[in-house]
Amino acid sequence: MFHTRISLGDTDAAGVLFFARLFDIVQRTFEAFLAERGLPIDRCLDAGILAPVVHAEADFRSPLRLGDAINVAASVESIGDSSVRMAYVVRSEDGSLAAEALVVHVCIGSDGRSVPVPDALRRALHSAGA
Amino acid sequence: MFHTRISLGDTDAAGVLFFARLFDIVQRTFEAFLAERGLPIDRCLDAGILAPVVHAEADFRSPLRLGDAINVAASVESIGDSSVRMAYVVRSEDGSLAAEALVVHVCIGSDGRSVPVPDALRRALHSAGA
Amino acid sequence: MFHTRISLGDTDAAGVLFFARLFDIVQRTFEAFLAERGLPIDRCLDAGILAPVVHAEADFRSPLRLGDAINVAASVESIGDSSVRMAYVVRSEDGSLAAEALVVHVCIGSDGRSVPVPDALRRALHSAGA
Amino acid sequence: MFHTRISLGDTDAAGVLFFARLFDIVQRTFEAFLAERGLPIDRCLDAGILAPVVHAEADFRSPLRLGDAINVAASVESIGDSSVRMAYVVRSEDGSLAAEALVVHVCIGSDGRSVPVPDALRRALHSAGA
Repeated sequence: MFHTRISLGDTDAAGVLFFARLFDIVQRTFEAFLAERGLPIDRCLDAGILAPVVHAEADFRSPLRLGDAINVAASVESIGDSSVRMAYVVRSEDGSLAAEALVVHVCIGSDGRSVPVPDALRRALHSAGA
Repeated sequence: MFHTRISLGDTDAAGVLFFARLFDIVQRTFEAFLAERGLPIDRCLDAGILAPVVHAEADFRSPLRLGDAINVAASVESIGDSSVRMAYVVRSEDGSLAAEALVVHVCIGSDGRSVPVPDALRRALHSAGA
Repeated sequence: MFHTRISLGDTDAAGVLFFARLFDIVQRTFEAFLAERGLPIDRCLDAGILAPVVHAEADFRSPLRLGDAINVAASVESIGDSSVRMAYVVRSEDGSLAAEALVVHVCIGSDGRSVPVPDALRRALHSAGA
Repeated sequence: MFHTRISLGDTDAAGVLFFARLFDIVQRTFEAFLAERGLPIDRCLDAGILAPVVHAEADFRSPLRLGDAINVAASVESIGDSSVRMAYVVRSEDGSLAAEALVVHVCIGSDGRSVPVPDALRRALHSAGA
């Protein structure tokens, strides 16, 4: 579970979370998720594990405002030959649903072609977390 | 057509466009699209037209790198009672497909409840552009 | 003390923290600083306390990379009639200096003219923190 | 001269440009400045020219709002042995001063140590622009 607050730079002139910022929050959650499972993101990069995003989507259920505390739960939806589908649920502190997101990563080699999901990443994604 | 370049702040340590930044670019394209049709975004806000994003998604087809010039084409996919579905196609200068995106807005009143798409917005979306 | 990690969206194609992102981190630190002193940022806005930034500067002492854990210490450098000068020191987990920043806020009324620093803000800034 | 508009993602819940975003705009201006002088930023990176920011500062003179059109003028304040000081002036379309910024870059080698400003960069900075 990743915990953060909506900061001024996350909001827009309409007074709510600017929608693109949700994906920044989702990425932070992904990195925290991996770190809790023994695979900090810097280790990924050092190990040559590249997993760029090929698809990202989000549904915004209720507006988030400046200072709102949120909890983001990450889960592995599925792992394919070379792809990983991650699901995210964003809740306000009172438990109400604020947003949901899905991000699909594809593992690639240094030549940019897809490769099987590296064992280190597969193990981390399958583990129970700290 | 919105034209921009991938700036250093759009990229990440993997050397490519950070995926969340695409949605910033898409928003800029939406604003340029409306302005070309006589409805600058500041006029929207002044007129009390609020159209927050309820769904956003993107597919990343080929990586964009620092300095890459891109063209983003916006089109209205459909207009519902209170919602607007906008489609975006991002191409590199050589015409190759870099990304596609879909953003759904819902028009709301100051109480946060959905309202019919305001006439001024509907007219702008239906117009041919400058 | 505000604690965070350098996330992928904070980095750039040169592999380090994109300099503008430091100011986002500094703003988060300011909000945490105020919250610890009983003045969460949403309460500021609700109370009509507006304190836009009129000056911001930062010195970057050593590069921060993806996944780096940092601690940011905030302190009040001085409080003037209508202005507040906040100082920030960013350190890596090993204690080494990564960056320093200074941000000057000026308190304004709803008409945009400067006003004396509101008592609630002054008290919070003078308090010892949680 | 770099021209842009304040987009929704540049603003914050106070209804104005979020201060940190000014530095993103300044970076875009720097890249446009170099490109006009024959040194696109991607060519810099390819040529191994690394010039990270060691100091950045900005003064905010008048608030910028959603949709505001701005012009940013860049100029070389000075070039040292290994450093470059760039000055920026941000004006609204009506010519009124909105902000000023100063950014200091230091040229480094792949080992992270400072090196003399590379000739290609020095020439570009000294040239008159397109």
